[in-house]
Amino acid sequence: MKVYLDNAATTKVDEKVLKEMLPYFTEKYGNSSSMHLMGNEAKSALEKARHTIAKSVNAKTTEIYFTSGGTEANNWVLKGLFWKNQKLETGKNHLITTKIEHDSILKPCERLEKQGGKITYLDVNKEGFIDLEQLKKAITKETFLVSIMHGNNEIGTIQDIEKIGKICKEKNVLFHTDACQSYTKIPIDVKKTNIDFLTLNAHKIHGPKGIGALYIKEGIEMTYLLHGGGHEKGKRSGTQNIPGIVGFAKAVEIANSKDVKKMEKLRDKFIEKILDIPNTTLNGPKENRLPNNINISFNDVEGESIGGYLENAGIFVSTGSACMSNTLSSSHVLEAIKLKPLQANSSIRFSISKYTTEKDLDYLMKKIPDIIKKLRRLSPLVK
Amino acid sequence: MKVYLDNAATTKVDEKVLKEMLPYFTEKYGNSSSMHLMGNEAKSALEKARHTIAKSVNAKTTEIYFTSGGTEANNWVLKGLFWKNQKLETGKNHLITTKIEHDSILKPCERLEKQGGKITYLDVNKEGFIDLEQLKKAITKETFLVSIMHGNNEIGTIQDIEKIGKICKEKNVLFHTDACQSYTKIPIDVKKTNIDFLTLNAHKIHGPKGIGALYIKEGIEMTYLLHGGGHEKGKRSGTQNIPGIVGFAKAVEIANSKDVKKMEKLRDKFIEKILDIPNTTLNGPKENRLPNNINISFNDVEGESIGGYLENAGIFVSTGSACMSNTLSSSHVLEAIKLKPLQANSSIRFSISKYTTEKDLDYLMKKIPDIIKKLRRLSPLVK
Repeated sequence: MKVYLDNAATTKVDEKVLKEMLPYFTEKYGNSSSMHLMGNEAKSALEKARHTIAKSVNAKTTEIYFTSGGTEANNWVLKGLFWKNQKLETGKNHLITTKIEHDSILKPCERLEKQGGKITYLDVNKEGFIDLEQLKKAITKETFLVSIMHGNNEIGTIQDIEKIGKICKEKNVLFHTDACQSYTKIPIDVKKTNIDFLTLNAHKIHGPKGIGALYIKEGIEMTYLLHGGGHEKGKRSGTQNIPGIVGFAKAVEIANSKDVKKMEKLRDKFIEKILDIPNTTLNGPKENRLPNNINISFNDVEGESIGGYLENAGIFVSTGSACMSNTLSSSHVLEAIKLKPLQANSSIRFSISKYTTEKDLDYLMKKIPDIIKKLRRLSPLVK
Repeated sequence: MKVYLDNAATTKVDEKVLKEMLPYFTEKYGNSSSMHLMGNEAKSALEKARHTIAKSVNAKTTEIYFTSGGTEANNWVLKGLFWKNQKLETGKNHLITTKIEHDSILKPCERLEKQGGKITYLDVNKEGFIDLEQLKKAITKETFLVSIMHGNNEIGTIQDIEKIGKICKEKNVLFHTDACQSYTKIPIDVKKTNIDFLTLNAHKIHGPKGIGALYIKEGIEMTYLLHGGGHEKGKRSGTQNIPGIVGFAKAVEIANSKDVKKMEKLRDKFIEKILDIPNTTLNGPKENRLPNNINISFNDVEGESIGGYLENAGIFVSTGSACMSNTLSSSHVLEAIKLKPLQANSSIRFSISKYTTEKDLDYLMKKIPDIIKKLRRLSPLVK
């Protein structure tokens, strides 16, 4: 049996998504910039997809720009806006973010710090929520952007973006949220929530890898990352990846609340059953949690070892966010929620999808208690 | 009948390429950064593809970095190197390029000029070749990069990159060439040719859109465009687009000299037959020309009108590079080879591929003389 529980890292492309993409590889393969019929065919697919994505977050079609993924979109917002402000010599060089952002926010922040940017990294509480009062106090006249992720990729915390948006609007600063993990799972309304920039991507929602989008509120000017042929209304050059874009839109189109409810139910059952194993704790909140995220510390046991045993049983999980696995350094998110290093090292992220079944859960529960028991027997930490 | 002659804009994905990609959407869909078996499966496909591409240009596997396409690769070289030099305060702020580069070089150059960069745009002769003596003279102590495209996308001119590489090596400046149009058509050996940076992409060679690569010679440091999870050895973050990368490598693997020879033969036959139409001229050279490029001025007739009539007959061509079609401004390449505006406006680019047949050519030759005759009858320019 094979049970894939690493859907926060990436997901299986839905067969319906792939089917939608296929003609654009070998039949309707025109360049959307070409003036002839095949170009128009590509252009029309492109604009239809843009409309689908815009509608899904209550944006205007003209406010959606396709990128190569979430990382590019996040880099673009932070750098593009900072550079624009430098050029305008507005003096605004202060950016507010959190300690639990994805690296595609934190690493660009490090870069901007080297260019004169001042970054405030907001604390989070034990469940991963920011303190809205701390946010309010952090905003100064120099603040050009507040960038706070919607749903956290490691511990599933969903920030109250409505309240954050309201604060930003009152204080007259721009607000960006990275919604790569929450998109299509938690409703987002850019107008109602006062969102100025929104990062979206496809491969976390059963769409293809290599495609994402950035919503930029009408009227906001920023520097571009990629200059060239003038695609995406001149703001993001590069021949548009039509099959990827079409697949992205299809993934958005077929996402539905029934699947979300199914995931939530399964998530809660997962959590309940796993916490039956002695000396295990849930990381992240019980309420306002991503429907697909389960993060558990199996105290006194190494997460890597659990991962290895689960893998032998055909169960694939993450022992750190996938993006961090390369480095093997301990998670900055678990550190921010004040987990002790040993607890952080004993954590496993199970991330489910619409394809995860009760049977998968049963299989996991058949395997994991014995693995934990065995590892605890071997652990020098258990007295 | 449908005859696609716009392969310099983009190409049909080869069925063999698509077949290779398919499992990576719905079966082997792991994130190459995940530590489990499915991650390893993706990682191993990624590294195999990197090896294929490296080998094809005689680079080391570790010298190939995947990007979202040619535009990103070109932006990365120019900006990344310029910013690095700024940071190092080397004083080197001079870049040499040509008047016939793709916009993904020219537009970043404009941006760098605003940041204090000094750009020399080399002239080209009537066939589109640069003057090597002018290049030599242009290099100063402040020159940090020479960026000269390999094969021109509009008029097919293939620069002598061996000689350019030799000059750059002698003068101790870095050399970049954009090989998006020439890759797999003209052999490239980065070591023999002293190339420091090489831009490659997939969708011009029957691979998928949205994927490209940059060769960076070992040991060269530059600033990155995309910061984040540390993919591509930390130099280009963003979850790798495995299906795209696998497809890219397959396209490279199946490219072969037999197809190239077939294209060359067909190209020459095309040119010969089309020039039989009175008052037509070939733009670009006869020798050292991209195997798939045919650019003709049908004097006294508007290119756009010819394009429209051809389209009605199911023949798709370009009346300007696809990337420029959006803007409808006249081609900077045709201007650089000193075509009069009327001649430039009467030009059509026919770009063939390995799928183009003699039958396609026969069909074109059945249609085009009458179209030209008719349009010339209507033209106010014909006395």
